[in-house]
Amino acid sequence: MEQRSDHTDRPRSDEATVAPFLAAARGEPTTHTPVWFMRQAGRSLPEYRAVRGDGSILDAIKQPDLSAEITLQPVRRYGVDAAVLYSDIVVPAHAVGFGIDVEPGRGPVADTPLRSRADLDRLRPLEADDVAYVTDTVDLLVDELPATVPLLAFAGAPFTVASYLIEGAPSRTYQHTKALMATDEVLWHDVMDRLASSAIEFISAQLAHGAGAFQLFDSWAGALSRADYERFVQPHSRRVVAELGERHPGVPSIHFGIGCDHLLESMYACGVSVIGLDWRTRIADARRRLGTDTAVQGNLDPALVLAGTDPALAGAAAVLADNAGHPAHIFNLGHGVQPDTDPGVLEAVTRFVQEETRR
Amino acid sequence: MEQRSDHTDRPRSDEATVAPFLAAARGEPTTHTPVWFMRQAGRSLPEYRAVRGDGSILDAIKQPDLSAEITLQPVRRYGVDAAVLYSDIVVPAHAVGFGIDVEPGRGPVADTPLRSRADLDRLRPLEADDVAYVTDTVDLLVDELPATVPLLAFAGAPFTVASYLIEGAPSRTYQHTKALMATDEVLWHDVMDRLASSAIEFISAQLAHGAGAFQLFDSWAGALSRADYERFVQPHSRRVVAELGERHPGVPSIHFGIGCDHLLESMYACGVSVIGLDWRTRIADARRRLGTDTAVQGNLDPALVLAGTDPALAGAAAVLADNAGHPAHIFNLGHGVQPDTDPGVLEAVTRFVQEETRR
Repeated sequence: MEQRSDHTDRPRSDEATVAPFLAAARGEPTTHTPVWFMRQAGRSLPEYRAVRGDGSILDAIKQPDLSAEITLQPVRRYGVDAAVLYSDIVVPAHAVGFGIDVEPGRGPVADTPLRSRADLDRLRPLEADDVAYVTDTVDLLVDELPATVPLLAFAGAPFTVASYLIEGAPSRTYQHTKALMATDEVLWHDVMDRLASSAIEFISAQLAHGAGAFQLFDSWAGALSRADYERFVQPHSRRVVAELGERHPGVPSIHFGIGCDHLLESMYACGVSVIGLDWRTRIADARRRLGTDTAVQGNLDPALVLAGTDPALAGAAAVLADNAGHPAHIFNLGHGVQPDTDPGVLEAVTRFVQEETRR
Repeated sequence: MEQRSDHTDRPRSDEATVAPFLAAARGEPTTHTPVWFMRQAGRSLPEYRAVRGDGSILDAIKQPDLSAEITLQPVRRYGVDAAVLYSDIVVPAHAVGFGIDVEPGRGPVADTPLRSRADLDRLRPLEADDVAYVTDTVDLLVDELPATVPLLAFAGAPFTVASYLIEGAPSRTYQHTKALMATDEVLWHDVMDRLASSAIEFISAQLAHGAGAFQLFDSWAGALSRADYERFVQPHSRRVVAELGERHPGVPSIHFGIGCDHLLESMYACGVSVIGLDWRTRIADARRRLGTDTAVQGNLDPALVLAGTDPALAGAAAVLADNAGHPAHIFNLGHGVQPDTDPGVLEAVTRFVQEETRR
């Protein structure tokens, strides 16, 4: 990486140092449509498998040198326009000793799920010191990354983290989560309040150390009806975005979930600067529903990347056509990179989007 | 069961023999809002586990006495307003020797998935004789069921069946299915055409033997964008509904998928009489989008049934409030009954809905 970056929020006069990602997130003209991929650092990369070894991702995340290297790998290989911190959405809960791990190939598992008020005591408020290894990683990365490639912080939104803590394992029904909502609304909101505070502290620490933007992942919010989302989830996600906006004015925020077309307006109303879309929602439809100048991120179907270079490039061209040249577009997949993805296809997609949109 | 039914499509003058299910599907006034549950016959019932034994569901389905008994169990226990044939969406593919089985706890698996034109040869056109055991079961059931409780036939819609045959196992990405769409559209449409014909023959045979309505399950269509749905799926599902409508005029049809809010108009445009909703779509919203007199089925979140009687009844009351007394409503869950469901809760829901809506 060429130079030390200077991650402040003030506008830069030298065009070469303006990050296309940050410009697009603010709806400002850029040299090209910026590209990054959710889960771009990970099992799809041979250089990741070479350094990662076995063991829990949560242990790997505790090693700043390793995490920084893993974060940089896709930036080097693809030339993407953002680095996304190598992390996991259960890091804050793990860091306060809740008792949760990530099983390879399965996902987050908790031996003793959160089901009662007594369990909430195991989720003490997060302090910056609990995640010093994360901010150490951020320090390394802001030294390494060029000014044109910001570091993205991320956290799980309170609902999605709650679903892992309450189910104790990946779920398709979210039955215990929904049961808690339906049977103890006071405890539900206390859990969500704790998780919202945790997300705020976690992201704020990373921004204070130089991350340039953040994404709030509410991956599984699409399991809810809009009425339940607005009653049980939205106030807490809105608080996360609002408090971070007060502490770090001008820092772009992205909100994303899978299968959330029916929640689009309600998720955007949390106050984020960019709405992340999966391939089920057309970019043009999102702007029709949310406002013509809405900044959007997305939304190539990762299945087309798995299908090969030709289908992936055809899909990428369709995404660009859907965006119709709007400056407020960050190109991404509509979901995380699948582990069996051919990196050559993502490299071709990155180059195609950057060159096709060069101004 | 009290009496032999007479499953013709002519209107009945004797109100006691008018099936509330059929009336509601046609938007006509009924004695009460009819209730049934997707996957009401199955592992959640102790009497099912007592008769079912081990082995593949596909073998159980080949035994008409056993299948008829299993179909009747929830009618007896809950007093639901429809019997749904104990069957599986891969029955027609299995019956023509494609080579597919259903693994307990996992779902449909094919040792040699459908990936090429040569594989299509293993999916020969279905003939009624291939599923004689199914129509034998239908014969037994129409003898047993009262006239007020119609038998529902069902089939997988072409896309959802294709996804099982092409993936070879349950999938969350549908990567091979989408790859085939993206790389060989001619073969894709040939596969879908074959599966549409199969669904038509399968359902038509059951209707000819006295089933009173049918549901087309496109469970996984929600994985597609609307543009892809309309290009790759809708013409085939539309043909299924249209041809069955010609062969069996006046027979109500239901179309259902999970997470299909973004496809609602396109799925309804296949021409069905009733649109099935999951809990993500409000009934009032569906009628606003599709027409104020649209007949709808749904849509209690099965997670609320798992949460216990009180949350389930509160949820059922919310569904009835959402429907606002419209006659064109068939009460159901928004997804299939989960195996660990307490039958006592479903019994309470059935009684609550039937009594609360008694006219």
